[in-house]
Amino acid sequence: MKFAVAATHGRARAGSIETAHGTFETPAFMPCGTKGAVKGLEPRELRAAGIEILLSNTYHLALRPGEDRVAESGGLHRFMAWDGPILTDSGGFQVFSLAGLRKITDEGVTFQSHIDGATVQFTPERVVEIQEKLGSDILMPLDEPIPWPPDPKVARAALDRTHAWWRRSHATKGGALFGIIQGSILPELRKESAEAIAATDPPGFALGGFSMGEPNPQMYEMVAYTTSLLTETKPRYLMGVGTPEDILAGVRAGVDMFDCILPTRMGRTGIAYTSQGILRIRNAKHARDLSPLDPACDGPCCRSYTRAYLRHCFNVDEMLGPKLLSLHNVTYYGRLMRRIRAAIRDGSLDSLKP
Amino acid sequence: MKFAVAATHGRARAGSIETAHGTFETPAFMPCGTKGAVKGLEPRELRAAGIEILLSNTYHLALRPGEDRVAESGGLHRFMAWDGPILTDSGGFQVFSLAGLRKITDEGVTFQSHIDGATVQFTPERVVEIQEKLGSDILMPLDEPIPWPPDPKVARAALDRTHAWWRRSHATKGGALFGIIQGSILPELRKESAEAIAATDPPGFALGGFSMGEPNPQMYEMVAYTTSLLTETKPRYLMGVGTPEDILAGVRAGVDMFDCILPTRMGRTGIAYTSQGILRIRNAKHARDLSPLDPACDGPCCRSYTRAYLRHCFNVDEMLGPKLLSLHNVTYYGRLMRRIRAAIRDGSLDSLKP
Repeated sequence: MKFAVAATHGRARAGSIETAHGTFETPAFMPCGTKGAVKGLEPRELRAAGIEILLSNTYHLALRPGEDRVAESGGLHRFMAWDGPILTDSGGFQVFSLAGLRKITDEGVTFQSHIDGATVQFTPERVVEIQEKLGSDILMPLDEPIPWPPDPKVARAALDRTHAWWRRSHATKGGALFGIIQGSILPELRKESAEAIAATDPPGFALGGFSMGEPNPQMYEMVAYTTSLLTETKPRYLMGVGTPEDILAGVRAGVDMFDCILPTRMGRTGIAYTSQGILRIRNAKHARDLSPLDPACDGPCCRSYTRAYLRHCFNVDEMLGPKLLSLHNVTYYGRLMRRIRAAIRDGSLDSLKP
Repeated sequence: MKFAVAATHGRARAGSIETAHGTFETPAFMPCGTKGAVKGLEPRELRAAGIEILLSNTYHLALRPGEDRVAESGGLHRFMAWDGPILTDSGGFQVFSLAGLRKITDEGVTFQSHIDGATVQFTPERVVEIQEKLGSDILMPLDEPIPWPPDPKVARAALDRTHAWWRRSHATKGGALFGIIQGSILPELRKESAEAIAATDPPGFALGGFSMGEPNPQMYEMVAYTTSLLTETKPRYLMGVGTPEDILAGVRAGVDMFDCILPTRMGRTGIAYTSQGILRIRNAKHARDLSPLDPACDGPCCRSYTRAYLRHCFNVDEMLGPKLLSLHNVTYYGRLMRRIRAAIRDGSLDSLKP
């Protein structure tokens, strides 16, 4: 994996990351192909939307169809017919969301599958092994995010465990394995974590434990503080973030990579991102509106369909509605990242609005 | 509307029909865009699958969003972003499916909307008016299909009403309005109906009341009998039919147009049409199968995705599964019709298998 910065503006960087499955430009947004599919969208549609890298989920794929099944298919790229770079998460976040169904020990996490109740164990070594079988281009180690607001004792223990797990993950020598920095919104823990992870010289840094419910200003401040502790020569990935505003704030703080379910989840529920703000397509005021979702958008949804038609599709439960709004939102995010990269290069980032 | 026969083989004909929205080749298959969308598929995908004409449903569109709303959008073609020919049914079949919720009189049909229970009346004049507002290229008159097996008295009364309604429909002078021949599987009624409709010189003939549960041999025999009563110079449309085998039998009996929900409905439920027969993608035997749905298919689904992946999508409820199998099936039907037209032209229709 090679990271190159081509331009900077303030703390923001525009560059590229080279992987075994091609190069993607940064700052980059990764749509979530949680179970091996970005909901409702085909790879060719994602490409056309300007998407260059996808995220997929270790937890979901390990349960169904299983990493061995994916490996037999020639790896995740061939399985889902996406030939570009793929980043996989470690499953940590999903496991920690299974409150009451999982038990954390120093060895790892034991949990009941949400599908059939079977007992499954994730250890630092195992999640790297799963991701290697999937054939991921960028891997994430098992970590322990904690809920917001943080209990300092819980945060301390979780960070110690995250670091202990990181040493084991790192020792596996698995592919391009990013280190994850935790520490909630506690500056001293973030600093300790950044130093501990940096000391092992990983190819990139992930900022975990954000977007857990903390107010945006706190998140933005802590992200900016954390990136300030990191070398300029390695990519930074803000996990699970976020809205267009969050992404712009992250870029200004020097973040290079983002992922979020928002564009597809919002699209499926009838909410579109536009240059004029959020648009709720089910709203009655769109029933006779013959304009596209976003007059500033040149994507396939806005080129072909009116708000009146899209509202009708949602109104009569035609699956084309959720699909087209998902496609629109991913196109919006793809264009946002393109605009951000251009603004970093031409020095206009300060005035950029999502 | 202009119909031209370019080649024949036995009673089968290959030709074309010219409409205000372009020409389509016959025999033609029309996917169902019931509520103004072919479920899960975009117009550009239908085009690429070789589809040249769509069917849409008067009943559904009249209820939601309403024909006036569609007219305000510039008509159904612009509303759903399909610039090719559209045939609309009369709503008769849907209304007659609402057993217990509708009342038939000589004036028309009064029914309770399945959406909000509102009382709605369809008369012969009104359904033509609705279809004209939709901007349909080929219109269908209100008729009265009856269940199979037919009660001769019910069949007689329904046919008389269908003919009386047809005279009123015909008097509206609405666009390219096909006449519908009814008569269940009773040859004397079919003959009477064919003669009554032909006497009014409509631009085309629809064969209604088939695929109501009657055994295939009875349907094929009665379709062949009915087409034998009709002029060679006008198109024949077998409404709501059917499977690939049904279509081939219809073509051999001289039918030019077909519509059916099967390719999309089967696709959504995980059933694929292939050159090797029906394939149920949820079947466990496909879990490790890296071949495409159909080795003989060059469509976008078979070019990109394995059976293992498609099964996974159904298994984990990814909407991409139903979408891709729908696309595959429509592609299969599109190719079937292309093969049928070619076989009529080169004299090989007798040996063609679906």
